[in-house]
Amino acid sequence: MTEGNLLILHAAQLLSCSGFAARKGREMADIGLIEDGAVAISGGIITHTGSSREVLAQVNENDYVSIDARGKTLLPGFVDSHTHFVFGGYREEEFAWRLRGDSYMSIMERGGGILSTMQATRAAGLDELVESAGARLDELFGMGVTTVEGKSGYGLDRETELKQLRVMEKLNARHPIDIVPTFLGAHALPPEYQGRPEAYLDYLITCVLPVVREEGLAEFCDVFCEKAVFSPAQSERLLRAAATFGLRPKLHADEISPSFGGAELAAKLQAVSADHLLQTSGEGIRRLAASDTIATLLPLTAFSLGEPFARGREMIDAGCAVALASDLNPGSCFSASIPLLFALACIYMKLTPEEAVIALTINGAAAVGRAGSIGSIDVGKKADLILLRFPSYRFLPYHTGMNSVACVIKDGTVYRP
Amino acid sequence: MTEGNLLILHAAQLLSCSGFAARKGREMADIGLIEDGAVAISGGIITHTGSSREVLAQVNENDYVSIDARGKTLLPGFVDSHTHFVFGGYREEEFAWRLRGDSYMSIMERGGGILSTMQATRAAGLDELVESAGARLDELFGMGVTTVEGKSGYGLDRETELKQLRVMEKLNARHPIDIVPTFLGAHALPPEYQGRPEAYLDYLITCVLPVVREEGLAEFCDVFCEKAVFSPAQSERLLRAAATFGLRPKLHADEISPSFGGAELAAKLQAVSADHLLQTSGEGIRRLAASDTIATLLPLTAFSLGEPFARGREMIDAGCAVALASDLNPGSCFSASIPLLFALACIYMKLTPEEAVIALTINGAAAVGRAGSIGSIDVGKKADLILLRFPSYRFLPYHTGMNSVACVIKDGTVYRP
Repeated sequence: MTEGNLLILHAAQLLSCSGFAARKGREMADIGLIEDGAVAISGGIITHTGSSREVLAQVNENDYVSIDARGKTLLPGFVDSHTHFVFGGYREEEFAWRLRGDSYMSIMERGGGILSTMQATRAAGLDELVESAGARLDELFGMGVTTVEGKSGYGLDRETELKQLRVMEKLNARHPIDIVPTFLGAHALPPEYQGRPEAYLDYLITCVLPVVREEGLAEFCDVFCEKAVFSPAQSERLLRAAATFGLRPKLHADEISPSFGGAELAAKLQAVSADHLLQTSGEGIRRLAASDTIATLLPLTAFSLGEPFARGREMIDAGCAVALASDLNPGSCFSASIPLLFALACIYMKLTPEEAVIALTINGAAAVGRAGSIGSIDVGKKADLILLRFPSYRFLPYHTGMNSVACVIKDGTVYRP
Repeated sequence: MTEGNLLILHAAQLLSCSGFAARKGREMADIGLIEDGAVAISGGIITHTGSSREVLAQVNENDYVSIDARGKTLLPGFVDSHTHFVFGGYREEEFAWRLRGDSYMSIMERGGGILSTMQATRAAGLDELVESAGARLDELFGMGVTTVEGKSGYGLDRETELKQLRVMEKLNARHPIDIVPTFLGAHALPPEYQGRPEAYLDYLITCVLPVVREEGLAEFCDVFCEKAVFSPAQSERLLRAAATFGLRPKLHADEISPSFGGAELAAKLQAVSADHLLQTSGEGIRRLAASDTIATLLPLTAFSLGEPFARGREMIDAGCAVALASDLNPGSCFSASIPLLFALACIYMKLTPEEAVIALTINGAAAVGRAGSIGSIDVGKKADLILLRFPSYRFLPYHTGMNSVACVIKDGTVYRP
């Protein structure tokens, strides 16, 4: 037995989700199912995979610590490619007001909305944020998420935006989960720049992005492209500037206003992903399908708000590469329930269970620019894996809203929730 | 410090849900909120409760093990008053077929439906059922359920019906959760009695119920009152016979066929509860409101099936006593997610968070005939309690689909999930 060598044998089902790029349209149906599946791991990297017979023919079992996965399902770790998991304060009262039917405007007038989280996040110390965000990572990890994207965007000033990104940097170093940091300074207009969006963008471009670049604090730049927030032209200006600082573009696109052009802009800019897409036009869907931009859908948000879901079935049928993510945040969606996400995708958005698996693995990986190293069970990729305590992936939607994860393997190390 | 004495102090919120009977209609809004709340427990029974100041004035703190509940919410343990948690086999394929749009009939023809679970449950050994059902209890307990009702009904013959009830008896003795057993021999017609419902009822009444009574294996008798299953007249005959064996009546009422009269029958028989109620008529709702029968709603089932929810808001407005339960079973609802149940009740059925709390505590207790001993924080009741890791019950729907339970106190003993 060699230290760090792990052999997983006899999984009732192994889903390889094989590939090094996003899957589009009909390609999303193929999960690469292998019965009696096995994976050999050395130094945190997958070295062999296939049926147990195939793998055992290639390795010497005595060199490995073995896990008998009989009766279990083995699949790639989930990639949650859109979250706002670093924040101060909660907005449970606002949620109760919304349940009562109070209007968005009346909630804003009472100090609700993003600016309430902005104040609490500005006021919070770095250690306090590390602790609360770390607890949220524990929950995600227990549900099989091995890579999570996290956004800034609750500071809306240099100090706090950087603080949020540094929280992610710290957690990335100490938590088994991998964190992909995204700069979302353009999440809203801060009170200091009310009515002056162009001036705020100038501030982000000249005073914040240079530091983000210098300290290597983010990989992506995201923007809330929405009526009364940032127009498509403003969003484009920011994302093009961010690209000069090495940050690849992502967009909050077409969440609220019908046909606002977010999807079209994402395709034009070759954004890595366009997210939300509740109000995307047919033309927007066609543009996404013709592009390499991932269509990232966030049904937990629609569910929490009691609103209609994005047209996921239509997007896949049109040839889009669809990813699913949680959108975990303290306002519109204080949920990161991956089991509920699966149920919503399959029962309400009419994705097949196979498509939902692809959307949370290889397509999630593509939505954070990492399809080359995670998101599938392929030789050479990181050994980020999940074992379900049931013998079929079909239990994911069937065990509705319940966590079926028996253990998580991250970089070849085994964790139990 | 005296062995078995526990003092919980300084809960940010304590919800007493006080009372010894179900709450009807508007009474469901009152959760008895106390800030900085406390509970003193001796021998597994609540001896004092109120604000921390009040309780500390009445007890000597040195006689107790103390728990500091600052920042947490203290409420009665949840009562899940309708489940089928003892069963063999799974039906994940059937779920996938249903997602694909296959008809109920075509699923039955391929061996799906209740009879598939019947076969697996008949084939399963008692120990095997104890193990699988025990694992389900662990999940429920971790979500704050301290009392659970469980039904037979997957045997449809004497041997297996009794086996299911004996599984519950065994688990009740060894698991901290309290189990309330219900005899549901009339869950479906077994193949042996196809086309002969009256003969099957005769069999249950003459060959099964006497043994259930003799061994004290059940407290309630339930029946699936539904077109092509058991008519209201047949249901009434069975429930009246069961009453002579000491079993109080419950009904699966108005689940599928519109205005089938299940609610009306439940009210007429003074049933402890009428459950499902998806298709109940306005007259049925009025009859329930005028009765002492609990209207037990099971939104996880409607959610799993992608169907409309029962009209919970209308029932409460009409004056009904509404309870919420999971309906955990291997066919229509392989879910016991109490967090999702809360979200569905509040976001989609328009219950207030307060009403949802009452529906899962004192009204759940009333739906299993135990409102005198559990379901609220009242002196003399069992110390079955939950601590949420958040300072308000409003996090229950707000932390959507996620478990907010920090620890469960059962009969005065503290358990952490």
